[in-house]
Amino acid sequence: MTTTLVSGIAELVTNDPHLEGADQGEGLGLLRDAAVVISDDGDHPTVQWVGPEGRAPQADRKVDVEGRAVIPGFVDSHSHLVFAGDRSAEFAARMTGQPYDGGGIAVTMAATRAATDDELRRLVADRVEEMRAQGTTTVEIKSGYGLDTDNEARALRIAREFTEETTFLGAHVVPPEAREDRDAYVRLVTGPMLDACAPHARWIDVFCEPNSAHAFTEEESRRVLQAGRAKGLELRLHGNQLGHGPGVQLAVELGAASIDHCTYLSDRDVEALVGAADTTVATLLPGVEFSTRSPYPDGRALIDAGVSIALATDCNPGTCYSSSMPLVIALAVREMGLTPGEALRAATAGAAKALRRNDIGWIGVGSRADLTVLAAPSYLHLPYRPGVPIAFALDPTAA
Amino acid sequence: MTTTLVSGIAELVTNDPHLEGADQGEGLGLLRDAAVVISDDGDHPTVQWVGPEGRAPQADRKVDVEGRAVIPGFVDSHSHLVFAGDRSAEFAARMTGQPYDGGGIAVTMAATRAATDDELRRLVADRVEEMRAQGTTTVEIKSGYGLDTDNEARALRIAREFTEETTFLGAHVVPPEAREDRDAYVRLVTGPMLDACAPHARWIDVFCEPNSAHAFTEEESRRVLQAGRAKGLELRLHGNQLGHGPGVQLAVELGAASIDHCTYLSDRDVEALVGAADTTVATLLPGVEFSTRSPYPDGRALIDAGVSIALATDCNPGTCYSSSMPLVIALAVREMGLTPGEALRAATAGAAKALRRNDIGWIGVGSRADLTVLAAPSYLHLPYRPGVPIAFALDPTAA
Repeated sequence: MTTTLVSGIAELVTNDPHLEGADQGEGLGLLRDAAVVISDDGDHPTVQWVGPEGRAPQADRKVDVEGRAVIPGFVDSHSHLVFAGDRSAEFAARMTGQPYDGGGIAVTMAATRAATDDELRRLVADRVEEMRAQGTTTVEIKSGYGLDTDNEARALRIAREFTEETTFLGAHVVPPEAREDRDAYVRLVTGPMLDACAPHARWIDVFCEPNSAHAFTEEESRRVLQAGRAKGLELRLHGNQLGHGPGVQLAVELGAASIDHCTYLSDRDVEALVGAADTTVATLLPGVEFSTRSPYPDGRALIDAGVSIALATDCNPGTCYSSSMPLVIALAVREMGLTPGEALRAATAGAAKALRRNDIGWIGVGSRADLTVLAAPSYLHLPYRPGVPIAFALDPTAA
Repeated sequence: MTTTLVSGIAELVTNDPHLEGADQGEGLGLLRDAAVVISDDGDHPTVQWVGPEGRAPQADRKVDVEGRAVIPGFVDSHSHLVFAGDRSAEFAARMTGQPYDGGGIAVTMAATRAATDDELRRLVADRVEEMRAQGTTTVEIKSGYGLDTDNEARALRIAREFTEETTFLGAHVVPPEAREDRDAYVRLVTGPMLDACAPHARWIDVFCEPNSAHAFTEEESRRVLQAGRAKGLELRLHGNQLGHGPGVQLAVELGAASIDHCTYLSDRDVEALVGAADTTVATLLPGVEFSTRSPYPDGRALIDAGVSIALATDCNPGTCYSSSMPLVIALAVREMGLTPGEALRAATAGAAKALRRNDIGWIGVGSRADLTVLAAPSYLHLPYRPGVPIAFALDPTAA
């Protein structure tokens, strides 16, 4: 076992509500002039000690962050990283007024099917590395650009090389070749495709959006999720993105871990989310609203009502090709009325809850040693310095 | 003389309207599979050749950008980098509803006066390096946090170590100690302070904003600018930021190179800017609107009317502590209706015009060799990948 002392932390955000001597404003468990000891004694380094620097124990190695802030590594609980092709021209066209309806997914599908395993693996590796360089230490990765049995299973096999948090999203859209018989496609997703994908996935997801001709109805979504659950997968949903719809109610009814987007919510939806706050997280993806010029969800109202929220990027080639959790935090503060502390918690502890993980999203004895360093004295600089790459994941083994 | 061949450029934006074989859509002078030869034969490397990679001449050294896009380095024509202190808590408070009126400048003034020369120099160096790491190759730096003769002159001496584009902004706000006699402060700015600062500055600027009690009236602004001109300085203005005001009309009347902010414009202001399009650039600073939750200027309408526009960061501790030109471009596209090409031109050629420079903001024979590389195949990725650090300034001597 090797231990590493991380010292020189001007401000440490732990998200630990029980940490002695910490400032618990907004639940951040904040210590000044702090240190962390990491123990590298298994598959993944864990935190062994957290406290004031002056009381830090000895360790085998030392990393001095020289007065920077340290926060729990970002948990990006919603991304679509397994894809090939370039849709920047579609983005530019949309910025001059073309609406988004999910149809562009088929463009990425064709490019992704045409790519070799090695090409896809390299693309995913580059994107995961790009995220890590911006402070993200856990990423959920969905399939959903293969849309046939072999290509969906391939996407999940490749994603599994990079994360435990893999999500089968065969029900992303109905692919072009299946449009004349949607029901046959749902039978494929809930049958042979699920059989091929389930061994490589933790989660099953569906784009439940009756407002898009490409996505799935409530009834289709329920079939997909129930089939996945019967195969041992846990549930998450895309819903309420393009307009009001049944996504939230379905997520709460089925006890899904997360309902993602939540751009359009009725009062009844908010009530349902409040009632399910222990089970179902509303994952907000403001990078999508930014990149599609859509109205932002009212994050402030959701927090005030008592909804559990998370923030994630939705990094994908169509509606938000950003992997930047700091930008998401800045947008949550600027556009959704969250305080900087609420936004940071949603991007760490909130997203960990949306993945039903209690070993990440905080820094304390027993947590994973996923530390993100800021080139700044305080976490407030995340929204205060929008666009500036101040966050990076610490590699304690590089001491 | 050493020559360097930059090859492997998938897409080269030159902003050169005369380049043979280039796509001149939006004036970008765009070449695919291009190369650039740089000659290092003087104070600053210059471009010696631009064209298709297959026809590139021999050179002493070679840099292969491996299929990335290359654009003219960003010209950040409006920044306030000479400051000390931290105002992130003020930012957080503003995000919960406190308005901005310019009063916080005095907080930075106190911290800046208290800093040593070496502290200020290191802070500016770090910020200039941070900009370069995000693709900015020319930066204008203003004084304006000293607000007494010695501290203003010191700020400009330090700024001059980093850029030719230094701007005397003694008339940033009326400092607290001068509030009881504004006129005495204007006499100081136009007299002894100007005398001390002019040797270190190219430009003079004033915050002409009758909507703020801290800033200057039309009459005071005119006195400041005329005094500066008499000392050989060229003119630029802050104006029309917090509400309608006389800034634009004064800038046009005096033939200033730039009127910066332009958040609130009357039809008459727009007409004046159209008439002065050869002389006076409207510099838009959407990072300020982002960070102060203000309405964005209508950049689309200005371009359609025929106004010359530039984009810059306004990087400063109060209203926009972002040094990210890519974020500014993304905001211009998302919030002000510019196309990606218009936004890129405004952040390069447009800002060069706002600094009355014809050696930067484009890539062609005789221009400075200020090349910015994108970790992307096209400039479209600047707004398509918001928040992601894809741009960096090329150092051809590091080949």
